[in-house]
Amino acid sequence: VLDRRDGPGIGALTASPEQTFLALVGDWREARPSGALLCGMVGSRNGWVEAPYAPCPADAAAITRRIVHVEADGLPVAIVPGLSCVNPLGGPDVMRGEETQILGAMALHPELKQGRQLLALPGTHTKWVVVEDGLITCFLTAPVGEVFALLRDRSTLASAATGEDHSSPTGFALGLARLAEQGAARLPHLLFETRARQLVDGMARDDALGFLSGLLIGADVAAAADWHGPLDKLTLIGAPALTGLYGAAIAHTGGQSLDVDGDSAVLAGLTALSGQKNSDVHVLA
Amino acid sequence: VLDRRDGPGIGALTASPEQTFLALVGDWREARPSGALLCGMVGSRNGWVEAPYAPCPADAAAITRRIVHVEADGLPVAIVPGLSCVNPLGGPDVMRGEETQILGAMALHPELKQGRQLLALPGTHTKWVVVEDGLITCFLTAPVGEVFALLRDRSTLASAATGEDHSSPTGFALGLARLAEQGAARLPHLLFETRARQLVDGMARDDALGFLSGLLIGADVAAAADWHGPLDKLTLIGAPALTGLYGAAIAHTGGQSLDVDGDSAVLAGLTALSGQKNSDVHVLA
Repeated sequence: VLDRRDGPGIGALTASPEQTFLALVGDWREARPSGALLCGMVGSRNGWVEAPYAPCPADAAAITRRIVHVEADGLPVAIVPGLSCVNPLGGPDVMRGEETQILGAMALHPELKQGRQLLALPGTHTKWVVVEDGLITCFLTAPVGEVFALLRDRSTLASAATGEDHSSPTGFALGLARLAEQGAARLPHLLFETRARQLVDGMARDDALGFLSGLLIGADVAAAADWHGPLDKLTLIGAPALTGLYGAAIAHTGGQSLDVDGDSAVLAGLTALSGQKNSDVHVLA
Repeated sequence: VLDRRDGPGIGALTASPEQTFLALVGDWREARPSGALLCGMVGSRNGWVEAPYAPCPADAAAITRRIVHVEADGLPVAIVPGLSCVNPLGGPDVMRGEETQILGAMALHPELKQGRQLLALPGTHTKWVVVEDGLITCFLTAPVGEVFALLRDRSTLASAATGEDHSSPTGFALGLARLAEQGAARLPHLLFETRARQLVDGMARDDALGFLSGLLIGADVAAAADWHGPLDKLTLIGAPALTGLYGAAIAHTGGQSLDVDGDSAVLAGLTALSGQKNSDVHVLA
């Protein structure tokens, strides 16, 4: 990696995707790249150009066939499609960006291409992914990070916002324990405890945020175990802080997980999709 | 009822509670009332004056003993306390305002004072309440309305806001059915379906909002049945539109419910607490 730039997410653009792209990395063209490869929301309906979802089951070849090509001031730009599937609960589901991380995790850890694997990519929209012999066969989305952020920032459950958003490990462990003890079906009846513990027991805000996080992540993990069976060989892909929380929740159910760094996975995935390892293709996640 | 005025909730006050009260109903003093009786968030820590929670079990007499008295420009003002308890899941819980509606429902329907009764007061914070021989013994809060409003207005699950927030009955029935079919423990894994159905299947926004509402109310009802047992003799207190949705969810589980109008209940509760039926005490919910 010669250089790295971070730009705004799709919800924070102040110019068109093409203008944003050129403003962010236009100067990279001095190195005469043969093109750029992009993944994620840039290919959504509200992105640069829509790259229609590739249906599961899908592998790198199926995804590559659906790459959409545009130009940015003369530079070829290739946009990776997302995936769609019927999820393990029989409902429709979609992803954008995570398909590239999954391919990257398999490139970094070839043993993930062997047999049936369960992967989880925790985040705003946590993805639970089933891979069979290297094929992404289906996946399921739980909007855990998004619900947590809404409850943290805008609900009465943790209303005494201080601007500092730490979730304490003590609160997190208590949330996991309450969820496990009562069962995941009672999640809606445990959420308000976050507020009541502050009002009645004087629970500190850091502990309340940790408690809320423990309830939500605990419920996500319990729901996954409910349809998948024991989580005894799970691969977690994401930022270490987040995979750490999921790893703790999975260990709490008696499961085991292996971590893959999310940044490394997206880079490895784009490299795999470019099919040109060590070439001069420039990539932008 | 000689007159009725609606004022701002505690989150929307632009003056002190006393000033707001006098601006709203100060002219009622021309009728020479002996005092005013108030319930709800006016007695919270951020209200007019804190009326500390009465612990459960509690009846009208126990609540009356904890009424807090202040004055508004010479007029005696009595503020009804809320209730606290250890809820059916062993956690702390609190309510403010609903205790008055519960007493009102028992005044309107004296058969609710006989034996063990389960009541539900759907709303921003739905309360599930156990009453035994007229004593409020414990209750549990589920922030269903608050979570629904956050997901409706601020999440990516139903993002194409049009300013009109109708939840279709078709969508609601589908949400209830999906939740029942998959089980309440899978709620976190069903929520994202609201978005995926719009993206992939072209589900309309009204249907998506109904679907979300069906999932959340279905999960609340399932969780209540999980700790309480069959909901075969439940009393619903609230606005008819909301008790109707809960009634449908309860019927979907094979249960039965009786509706009590929430407005009538709060008035009957304040009347019961004033102990002065047909007197000139003025009440403000």
